[in-house]
This record gives sequence, structure tokens and C-alpha cells, in this order.
Amino acid sequence: MEIYSFGQRLIREAGQFIRNRMTEAYTIDKKTNPNDLVTDVDKETERFIANRIQEKYSDHQLIGEEYKEHSIENTDGVVWVIDPIDGTINFVHQRANFTISIGVFIDGKPHVGLILDVMNDVLYHAHAGHGAFIDDSRLPQLKQTVMEESLIGLNPKWMLKSGIGEPFMDVARQCRQTRSYGSAALEFAYVAAGRLEGTIFFRLSPWDFAAGIVLIEEVGGVVTNALGDPLSILKKDSVIAGNTNVHQSIQTAFSNNEAFVKHRQDSYHI
Amino acid sequence: MEIYSFGQRLIREAGQFIRNRMTEAYTIDKKTNPNDLVTDVDKETERFIANRIQEKYSDHQLIGEEYKEHSIENTDGVVWVIDPIDGTINFVHQRANFTISIGVFIDGKPHVGLILDVMNDVLYHAHAGHGAFIDDSRLPQLKQTVMEESLIGLNPKWMLKSGIGEPFMDVARQCRQTRSYGSAALEFAYVAAGRLEGTIFFRLSPWDFAAGIVLIEEVGGVVTNALGDPLSILKKDSVIAGNTNVHQSIQTAFSNNEAFVKHRQDSYHI
Repeated sequence: MEIYSFGQRLIREAGQFIRNRMTEAYTIDKKTNPNDLVTDVDKETERFIANRIQEKYSDHQLIGEEYKEHSIENTDGVVWVIDPIDGTINFVHQRANFTISIGVFIDGKPHVGLILDVMNDVLYHAHAGHGAFIDDSRLPQLKQTVMEESLIGLNPKWMLKSGIGEPFMDVARQCRQTRSYGSAALEFAYVAAGRLEGTIFFRLSPWDFAAGIVLIEEVGGVVTNALGDPLSILKKDSVIAGNTNVHQSIQTAFSNNEAFVKHRQDSYHI
Repeated sequence: MEIYSFGQRLIREAGQFIRNRMTEAYTIDKKTNPNDLVTDVDKETERFIANRIQEKYSDHQLIGEEYKEHSIENTDGVVWVIDPIDGTINFVHQRANFTISIGVFIDGKPHVGLILDVMNDVLYHAHAGHGAFIDDSRLPQLKQTVMEESLIGLNPKWMLKSGIGEPFMDVARQCRQTRSYGSAALEFAYVAAGRLEGTIFFRLSPWDFAAGIVLIEEVGGVVTNALGDPLSILKKDSVIAGNTNVHQSIQTAFSNNEAFVKHRQDSYHI
């Protein structure tokens, strides 16, 4: 429980750090390239989070989007998987709808998942075996749904990609409607909270999906790659998440598509 | 100014009405079909809004999504164009991310636009010639952007529609990223607030776009149908909204597509 409560305090503090930093940034924004600004805030926030973890737990391993030197070779012991700002383009264009995502795995197994909707200061959090929550409210187990009554997170750019587009189109055709929020972690939080019945991504990094796995599994949902294989926090991969029925329907669309299976690049180490 | 301040009070009260009604609905939800529930809340909310307007302004005309009997033959005088819940599917699936949209037109000209993000109680509002606001903060004039650096609201279902899909795919290809929020009025509010650089819809009703026109024009943006023609509050139509550059780029994609121009159904009276 100590890691869980420490992590919750830490991610709230990191959210406050970003919101404060944005006040400064607002002035800087007019003089410099917004992409530099983001890189700065990303890096500073990851450093803020990493420093706190290292001060408290010198023997834990870290993987982060910005600190590539944190890359690790194995998943032994406690591993923190950190995305300081998930939804960078939303951060720049919207100054909203981005998240901090922190997953903690022990010996490769999901332990704690934390996703903070930064501007709303809403925390989605889960401790494996002890339930998932949005702030203080416990999230119920996911209901099974059929595709034609489901909302699915889906980025239409993938529908246009030659070789891999067809199963994405298939999913878009089958479902009631699609949504696209521009932050993978936010979409995983939405799946855990029952606001989306499923979501699909062609390629994500471990820091995009680590926290989401813990949250979604804790409410009875399923998270795998597009072909139904388990994800590793050491590899980039495609990701399908959803309630069991919806996950199965999406996986079938991808597994049955020869072009997708053929074109799918091999996963590789970070 | 009286209509503007009355309208702002009214839409906030209607938001409170929905939030209260959802507490009751939560119990009812388990027994009945969620679609019936929504229809009830839609109708009750529209009746709530319409009654208040009729009590205060007996000579004003009303158009609403639920009260088809409000349909009118001309745009003379003051016309209120009301969508009590825009984003019905979000209301059912997410209990969030839906809006109330109220546009007021005088002799066919935009006068007041009000879009309430109900669950966040955030009001986007504009009075023609007097600026646009999000709550108490004045919205700046829109910046010109190029498509490859723009976020565009776009529903991928339209990309799959035979005969009309190609220009939607074209827009998805050209832009930096797409977003899909499931409430047209929310996307118009986002365009006015600079969170989306543009958005496109194949077919909307006047209650979906009336308030959006006022808000977006007030910050220097452009709203027309897909071929660049002006919209009427008496007709369904396709809608493109955005800053001038982005609007022009999207319109070009549609106007240059012979299949789209050919397949486009004639607009018709409600």
C-alpha cells in the first residue's frame, strides 16, 4: 500500500507542478516554438517525478518517455513506467485533455496504475487486487457490450494507412460511434470508467499503456496487443483494450486480416 | 443585452435541471431502456427552456430538437433555436461531454450564441458585435493556421460512406490530427475557443449549429456548408467551421470532389 499512496500523492503534486509551469509558459509561449516549450515541460515534469521516486526508493527501476537513459533490460523488482505528459498535441493546442500516466509493475506484474487528467485534477487509480477508483469513487466492473452498441476510441489516421487500414475501418464500421481524444492514457482511463467500451492503437510505448493495464484489468477488462498477445513494459506494441466481448470483437477484426498480420512490424526493445 | 443576460441565466438553470434530473435517472436507469430515459430528459429540458422563454417573450419564435411543433416558416423577428441535449450518445454512455445549445437569431441574423458544457458547468457565450467568452474570460480572435498544423473535428464514419467519403479522408490526411467528441455544439465551442482549428459535419440540424455560428463568427472564424454556402436556421445542411485558412482548405477538399458535389442531397425544410 505504501507505493500506492506515495504514487497518488506524487502524481497530484506533478499535476500541480505542470499547472504552475503553464502559467509561466504562457508568457514564454509567445516568444518561442511551442514544441520546445512542451519538451521543456515534459522533461522537467519527468525529472520532478523521477527525483521523488529515486529519493524515496533508490532500488526501484524507472522507464520514462523523456529520460531515455532510464531504459532498463529486465523487469525484476519494482519498475515505475512514467509518461509525464500523454497527449502532447492537446497540451500545445488545447492546454487541456492531457494526462500524466504512471504504472508500477513488480517482477513484470501489474501493481499500481495512476492516470491524472491534469487540468481537471481528476485521478483514475488502481491497486491490483484492491479495486479501481476515480478520485474517491470506486469504479464498477465493466459490463459486457456488443460492438453495435459500443463507443470505441479510434484514430482515423490509421484507417488511411496502406496495408494496415482495413481492420481499423472494420472496427469503425462495426461500432455505434468512435471517439478520438488524443491521449491514449485518457482513453484507457475512459475504458476503465465505462465511458468508452473499447479503444485501439496501432503502436504505443510502455509509458502510454502501463497504467492503463492496471486500471482496466482491475475492473475486469482485457488489454493485449492487436493479435491478442500479452503486452510487455519493455516493448512498443499495438494495443486493444475493452470489456471482454468488445476486446474479442476488435481482436478478431485484426487477427482475421491477413494484410495486417503480414504488415505488422515486429515489436522491438525501446 | 436583455436577451443575452436572460439567455445566460436560463441555460445555466437548464444545466442544473439536467444534473438534478440525472440523479433521479440513475435509479430509473437500471429498470428502463436508456434511450427512453434520454428522450425523457431531452423533452423535459426543452419544455423547461421553452416555457421560460414563452413566459417572458410571448412574441418570440422557437425551434427545438424535441418539440417539432415549434417548427417555423420564416425567420422574422426573434427566433430561439434550441438543442436541450447535444451529444445524446455521450449522455447515455458517458454521463458527460454533452451540451445544451441555444442560438438566438433576429430577422435571420446571428444575435446570441450559448453552449453549456453541462457536467463541467462551463458556458461558451457570445453576443454579436460584443465578443465571445468562456465563462468570464474573453476569447481572442482565431489565429490563422495551415492544415498540417491543425486539429480537426471529424467523425470517421463519414470516411466510410460510399460516394461522400473521399473528401473526409482527404481532410483526415491533410491535418495534423483529428478529434471526435460526439457533440457538434461542443466541437463548435472548441473551435471558438481555439482548441480545434476546424470541424466538419456531413449533416446537422439548425439546433446543432445555430449557437456555434454566433460564437465562431464573433472570434473571426467562418461557418458555412461544405460547399461554402451560408447556413439557414430553417434547413439541415452540411457544416464546415474553422479559422479562415482552415475553412478554405476544407471547403476546397469538398468543392473539388465531384462525387461529393453530385451525391450531396438537396437541403430540405425541417
